[in-house]
Amino acid sequence: MEGAEAAAREALSTEKAFEREALPAWSEQITVRSVVVSTALGVFLSFIVMKLNLTSGIVPSLNMSAGLLAFFLMKTWTSALERCGVFPKPFTRQENTVVQTCVISCSSIAFSGGFGTYILGMSKKIAEGFDEAKTSINVEEPSLGRLIAFLFLVSFVGLFSIVPLRKIMIISYKLTYPSGSATAHLINSFHTPQGAIQAKQQVSILFKSFIGSFLWSLFQWFYSGGAGCGFSYFPTFGMEAYRRRFYFDFSATYVGVGMICPYIINFSLLLGSVVSWGIMWPYIESKRGSWYDAELPRSSLHGLNGYQIFISIAMIIGDGLFNFLTILVRTSYDMYLKRRRPAEAATKPFAGIDNNERQALSFDDRRRTQVFLKDQIPTSIAAGAYVLLAAISVVAIPHIFRQLKPKHVVWAYAVAPVFAFCNAYGTGLTDWSLSSSYGKLAIFIFGASIGARDGGVVAGLAACGLMMGIVSTASDLIQDFKTGYLTLTSPRSMFVSQVMGTGLGCIISPVVFWIFYKAYDVGLEEGYPAPYAKIYRGIALLGVNGWNQLPKYCLRFCLAFFLLAVAICALKEVAKHRGWWLQDYIPSALGMAVPFFLGSFFTIDMCVGSIVLYLWSKSDPVRAHMFAPAVASGLICGDGIWSLPSSILSLLNINPPMCMRVFSAETNFQVEEFLYTLRNPSAT
Amino acid sequence: MEGAEAAAREALSTEKAFEREALPAWSEQITVRSVVVSTALGVFLSFIVMKLNLTSGIVPSLNMSAGLLAFFLMKTWTSALERCGVFPKPFTRQENTVVQTCVISCSSIAFSGGFGTYILGMSKKIAEGFDEAKTSINVEEPSLGRLIAFLFLVSFVGLFSIVPLRKIMIISYKLTYPSGSATAHLINSFHTPQGAIQAKQQVSILFKSFIGSFLWSLFQWFYSGGAGCGFSYFPTFGMEAYRRRFYFDFSATYVGVGMICPYIINFSLLLGSVVSWGIMWPYIESKRGSWYDAELPRSSLHGLNGYQIFISIAMIIGDGLFNFLTILVRTSYDMYLKRRRPAEAATKPFAGIDNNERQALSFDDRRRTQVFLKDQIPTSIAAGAYVLLAAISVVAIPHIFRQLKPKHVVWAYAVAPVFAFCNAYGTGLTDWSLSSSYGKLAIFIFGASIGARDGGVVAGLAACGLMMGIVSTASDLIQDFKTGYLTLTSPRSMFVSQVMGTGLGCIISPVVFWIFYKAYDVGLEEGYPAPYAKIYRGIALLGVNGWNQLPKYCLRFCLAFFLLAVAICALKEVAKHRGWWLQDYIPSALGMAVPFFLGSFFTIDMCVGSIVLYLWSKSDPVRAHMFAPAVASGLICGDGIWSLPSSILSLLNINPPMCMRVFSAETNFQVEEFLYTLRNPSAT
Repeated sequence: MEGAEAAAREALSTEKAFEREALPAWSEQITVRSVVVSTALGVFLSFIVMKLNLTSGIVPSLNMSAGLLAFFLMKTWTSALERCGVFPKPFTRQENTVVQTCVISCSSIAFSGGFGTYILGMSKKIAEGFDEAKTSINVEEPSLGRLIAFLFLVSFVGLFSIVPLRKIMIISYKLTYPSGSATAHLINSFHTPQGAIQAKQQVSILFKSFIGSFLWSLFQWFYSGGAGCGFSYFPTFGMEAYRRRFYFDFSATYVGVGMICPYIINFSLLLGSVVSWGIMWPYIESKRGSWYDAELPRSSLHGLNGYQIFISIAMIIGDGLFNFLTILVRTSYDMYLKRRRPAEAATKPFAGIDNNERQALSFDDRRRTQVFLKDQIPTSIAAGAYVLLAAISVVAIPHIFRQLKPKHVVWAYAVAPVFAFCNAYGTGLTDWSLSSSYGKLAIFIFGASIGARDGGVVAGLAACGLMMGIVSTASDLIQDFKTGYLTLTSPRSMFVSQVMGTGLGCIISPVVFWIFYKAYDVGLEEGYPAPYAKIYRGIALLGVNGWNQLPKYCLRFCLAFFLLAVAICALKEVAKHRGWWLQDYIPSALGMAVPFFLGSFFTIDMCVGSIVLYLWSKSDPVRAHMFAPAVASGLICGDGIWSLPSSILSLLNINPPMCMRVFSAETNFQVEEFLYTLRNPSAT
Repeated sequence: MEGAEAAAREALSTEKAFEREALPAWSEQITVRSVVVSTALGVFLSFIVMKLNLTSGIVPSLNMSAGLLAFFLMKTWTSALERCGVFPKPFTRQENTVVQTCVISCSSIAFSGGFGTYILGMSKKIAEGFDEAKTSINVEEPSLGRLIAFLFLVSFVGLFSIVPLRKIMIISYKLTYPSGSATAHLINSFHTPQGAIQAKQQVSILFKSFIGSFLWSLFQWFYSGGAGCGFSYFPTFGMEAYRRRFYFDFSATYVGVGMICPYIINFSLLLGSVVSWGIMWPYIESKRGSWYDAELPRSSLHGLNGYQIFISIAMIIGDGLFNFLTILVRTSYDMYLKRRRPAEAATKPFAGIDNNERQALSFDDRRRTQVFLKDQIPTSIAAGAYVLLAAISVVAIPHIFRQLKPKHVVWAYAVAPVFAFCNAYGTGLTDWSLSSSYGKLAIFIFGASIGARDGGVVAGLAACGLMMGIVSTASDLIQDFKTGYLTLTSPRSMFVSQVMGTGLGCIISPVVFWIFYKAYDVGLEEGYPAPYAKIYRGIALLGVNGWNQLPKYCLRFCLAFFLLAVAICALKEVAKHRGWWLQDYIPSALGMAVPFFLGSFFTIDMCVGSIVLYLWSKSDPVRAHMFAPAVASGLICGDGIWSLPSSILSLLNINPPMCMRVFSAETNFQVEEFLYTLRNPSAT
């Protein structure tokens, strides 16, 4: 059985199917045609992201759509040339990955550039909606040149700060990056050689699950016409649980993500949901009026929302910092070994993976690791670029936003790498990028330390932009490295492509924003309301009132959960070293912290994914092992690609025709009566 | 492959698993304990059915619940005895089937006895709700003695009229009777011998699908708190299609039924839906105001509803009559052959099955046919009993309801067997018993021919009772014969058990009704509204106004569809005899007629069942063939057994806590505004 399973697994190896294809050198992976297609798609997706950003503020992940569009455009291009009798270089999956990466890093600036959030939050239109801090030092009108300059300064720092950690993230920690992996599976499927019958089954299963997931999203769309409508708001476990955000939201994406993430992560997420939304928040809410003002709106950081964001970030930073320091210590020890015994160190090209583990790797893993380690990006270059950029920023940013002093920028650049690591690591574990949470933290901290008199509102918002720029590009980069790892794309070409895409984005996004800003009433209810701009300015206004405005015991809670996270990580580390059986059952502190703020709907989805995988593995271990990643990727990609048509529908103002909603029986009774009077106007 | 499939099929034969068990003689299948358990369960279920009947008027099928409860009670009984050291005769599946049959024939009288419909429709309380026909000749108060006497007269006629046709229905026509088959599969599963590993897989799959279906029904229940709430009212294909009753109602039962019914039946149902709800009714509705009064309520027989019921019944009678006459001709020919060449006829024990076909039968089919044909019920006895009962009725019924004259009873008893055949045949094909449609037809015809002056209202309602009693017991009987056929239960013991159950029901149901009637305000809005009582009296009132009150062209339509049905049947018969390839693609006229009145939601369910089965057969023919009946039965039984707890919940006045509903986007907008004013009373 064991042997048969291994043989079957080997037969279904993805890389065996690709074995006969020559691997292009890294410089061949970036071609002229790929740059042209990337730019075109980058502009197209930037428009879509910008418009969504300015209307609802909710922007779906477009990774898979980018991969798919890249494939179709490039394929059309090469086929058209072939028909004309010109035979170009074949279109490889590496080229596809490079285009996808470039497009995403370009269009994601339209979101992380904060055009709908912090940039607009500084503007006069938004400032007029609030009572306080309307002084000129707390208002900054956007200007095209300033936007481009600022983006160029903050968007590359994340890349350089995280690139030296790629091996640890991808190979030592084997982080899953579910969306990145799904994109890679999709790209591999597109390019599987015709003759590779072995891989056919996997590809066919991926496409079946892909189409199922796409159709399901399409079906759901029809019933989502209105606030709180559709399957994503279905109170699966009753109204009371729904109010506490415990429900299964029928999202194929997160079921797929749950199938890719390890059981222990899904369990940690669920545990975190139960601890926070099941126990802590209800307890804190019961102190309403005593710990914090009962009259506050739900979104106020001075109320429950404050506890949620700050405790969650404290825990994430606790976990992140512990891991960051562990890596620092290990790497130093490694370098120390290398200097003392060069021969020994040579067999240990990176920390954390030993020879035993390497023996156990499958053919695919061995091949991918080999390619991933071939093209190096020297750490010295990365570090040098980081320091250089930081130095320029320290001088330049205070000129762009006079409210930020050089010392603030120095501070920001000193802590940013830790946050960048935390976010990249967390995204790898749970697929959630929490960049906006880090941004909110920055608004608060910088706002509080500068104060309203010295322009703390604009300073906080600018610091938020700086932090979001760094943190989100860092997690995007490692996510793309995972895609590259799984498609045998050179990390060097990925990095170059990411840098190119970011550069394009820093020009395209501000221009696109400028078009909208000049042509329409951005920031007003009619036209483009950009709802998050108000929220961000609101946070900044709270920040400038200072730390003592935080709700009671909030900082104590933060400290407790920070220490708890460190303790959990330490326990895990010890258990791993001592080989305790316990080690596999210690939850992840980071995983627990994610639902603290977001709620538990997606943890339920992910647990459903875990349960499906578990039952499948029990009933048919061989097939489950072979096909689960394909099914999961299909689920993620189908839902992901639906984002594109759904975004376009929303841009064309085509709204879903129906609304499915659930009422409690009493509410329904009242609604029923209302509908009756509506239909029989004479009855009243 | 062919050989392997045949071998696999043989290995999974149900009857092979039971082969070592001795088959009890028919008289051993009816035991004292079975009678005691039947009576107890009969009383219990009669109470449930009666209460549902008087509250909402909607009574689910309790067949599977009866089978399950019978199993558990009998098993507990025998196990308890065994623990006390007494070893009773083993509890066999035949005994189980006999108890189930007896319980269902007893409790179904509580529904077909018309306590919530025609009996109450005659009463003073209901009559007072209408403007016309309040004269004493058109009102009859229920009385216990009269109810029991009437039920005894009408409830057995159906049994005797249909029993001679059992072989034709079950063996020649191989009618599916999906609910009866599912019950049989369930009972077989309960009793599969421990050692029979071959059958284990089937049993395990049945229980998995059973539990899945049960849990799904349970889940659905939570969201069905209110009119039009829940998944059964989900506009799967949009609001416009929903208004025309085209939607998938997520019912596991009808998906299962669709998997058991032949493709051509499901296709006929769909075709009928499209022809009627897609084309004809919209056309007729466009003539509103010209063909019929535009002011009529939707339920009026003078409007669209009239077309629906009369056309549907005309078509069903066309198909039924054709088949009835075909059988008559064949049987006469058979008897003629028997008399001329006894030897030849002996190898042809019944019409329609020839030696070739017999060779192709599987082991299970051969064994079941053999048992089914062993214990005969002489046709002469059945015919004699029918004539005797009819004679008594002709004398007695006019004494019970003075409004009916002997000639009316003679007429009714003359046509009843044809209707009984039509209904039993239709139920076998589509799983829908249309007894209440035949009842409504009887109300109309008798009401119209007697007139209001001579008590046509009561006469019509009494004729409805007569017709429903005959027609519904007939289809129940053949359905139970199918269950008996599949569990190797002797038709003779089934028949005896059915007669016993009917007898019990004729006493228990009126007594249970009497308890409700005396203790509560039956027929009033508060208490027990019995909504159908009003509807039935309404039909009777329309009837007494005569035939010319039918909407325009209605009779012409009826004639056209009657002839169409006959033509389709004739074409099918000719195609079969000539061996045309066309024969498998001719739709069933009866199947087409069923959705004419009911709407198409269940035809969509059944087509989903067909599609599932088709895809499964394509991808894995061997397993699909072996396990599809088990999966389908599990789906039907799980949903069916949920009826019991859901009925009990409704009797205890425990209502579902939530309501899921779908609005069009505009309605939702208004509802949203209403909810806003509800939550913020000051905003208005």
